[in-house]
Amino acid sequence: MNKQSLIHQIKTKKNFLCIGLDTDITKIPAHLLQTANPVLAFNKAIIDATKNYCVSYKINTAFYEAQGVLGWQTMQETLAYIPDNIFTIADAKRGDIGNTSNQYAKAFFETIPFDAVTLAPYMGTDSLAPFFTYENKWGIILALTSNAGSSDFEQQQINHNKRLFEEVIDVFSKQVDSTKLMFVVGATKPKELGEIRKRIPEYFLLVPGVGAQGGSLADVAAHGLNKDCGLLINASRSIIYASSGVDFAENAAYEAKLMADEMALLLTKYQII
Amino acid sequence: MNKQSLIHQIKTKKNFLCIGLDTDITKIPAHLLQTANPVLAFNKAIIDATKNYCVSYKINTAFYEAQGVLGWQTMQETLAYIPDNIFTIADAKRGDIGNTSNQYAKAFFETIPFDAVTLAPYMGTDSLAPFFTYENKWGIILALTSNAGSSDFEQQQINHNKRLFEEVIDVFSKQVDSTKLMFVVGATKPKELGEIRKRIPEYFLLVPGVGAQGGSLADVAAHGLNKDCGLLINASRSIIYASSGVDFAENAAYEAKLMADEMALLLTKYQII
Repeated sequence: MNKQSLIHQIKTKKNFLCIGLDTDITKIPAHLLQTANPVLAFNKAIIDATKNYCVSYKINTAFYEAQGVLGWQTMQETLAYIPDNIFTIADAKRGDIGNTSNQYAKAFFETIPFDAVTLAPYMGTDSLAPFFTYENKWGIILALTSNAGSSDFEQQQINHNKRLFEEVIDVFSKQVDSTKLMFVVGATKPKELGEIRKRIPEYFLLVPGVGAQGGSLADVAAHGLNKDCGLLINASRSIIYASSGVDFAENAAYEAKLMADEMALLLTKYQII
Repeated sequence: MNKQSLIHQIKTKKNFLCIGLDTDITKIPAHLLQTANPVLAFNKAIIDATKNYCVSYKINTAFYEAQGVLGWQTMQETLAYIPDNIFTIADAKRGDIGNTSNQYAKAFFETIPFDAVTLAPYMGTDSLAPFFTYENKWGIILALTSNAGSSDFEQQQINHNKRLFEEVIDVFSKQVDSTKLMFVVGATKPKELGEIRKRIPEYFLLVPGVGAQGGSLADVAAHGLNKDCGLLINASRSIIYASSGVDFAENAAYEAKLMADEMALLLTKYQII
């Protein structure tokens, strides 16, 4: 999906919600455990129930890999089940030397054809270059994450005048434009989110950490929106595990609609729609 | 495998060679393409031919993921085919918030039971903690990699007095001892390898970049060996693609034995055996 289409989806659906399919077999409602593939049954029900209240789904590869071969099968079938007008993200945090990153790009852009994949920047620009050679595919690079450990390296001063996450943003945004590059910025740090928005006005930011991790939607919008919206806010556990009963999908839909409705108000308030 | 057993294997086999199974379907000898699973057939032949000349195999997950579900099946079957006395590494470069890293640890230590997995440090200590909760399992953290892009961030000054890769080493080695933590240090930077060896005398270093990437085995040994050896030197393409004919396995064995023989001389020269 290209940038224009993504913005069109946001303005049409009036939300910028990304739902994280971090589907943990141990948290699936008991009645689904009788089905042939409980994780797939769960994901399909969640997608059916929430697809009108979000513009993106993010599949967290770790939860699928923990199930081995079956997990990769489930990831592939889940992706295939997502409607074409929804932006799909492999939250895989990959990154390696170029020769190897070529293979990761093939895995997530061809073999399992996601729109985007999350990437770890530590190894430098050449390590991620292969992800930016595809048309209408996106790399989403970790900048400032929502966990406490972001203070260990990401927030440390580098080269005497900026923090590592700022250097990561500067170096990659110099090389790749906003039509195929986004950055991950945690919702738990609204002040820094605002500074990042000023640094890169045009780029989309993928923002995890609202919901279970404690970030506020209104704060993120106030600091992070740009003229096109420019945000994808992710919520995972607070939506998909809203209930552990037979009504799990209805409850997920309710939570997703609550967030989507709040987003519609914010998009209006900030005159984006 | 624990540290004592790894050192025992090195001293018994008289080498510290890790062979990288970066098996690319497009580079497999033509006659194998008729088999049911060419990558698995290739890997088994390489393992049969080289298992006496190495102490470790490193499976580069990207090459398997590029093949989707079949690739994960192949990765699992390849791992199962490797003899128990050989140290196995998932070269996966994973790392995420704790909740997600738990799942990656499960994937690579339980579902597919490798001895070790490579990890990306960008998100900080809490992001990798779950990998160090397993007995006799190892996390191998990226420190200074062999690619040109290591100058973008890894080699930059952080906090006014050290380089990022040195800070990564200091922060993690303070938290996890040398019985379950190694670091990745590229063979293309022998001077820095020597400095790292002085910084952390006890830790094993996984060293890629000898062979196709141009690093020298003698240089790496001179700068990187410690009293127990303390090195796993990886070669991938120079061994597994030594020939593209029907004699590919013999040629791989020849190249592996050449490296193993040189390593035996180095272990003797530096009085480790």
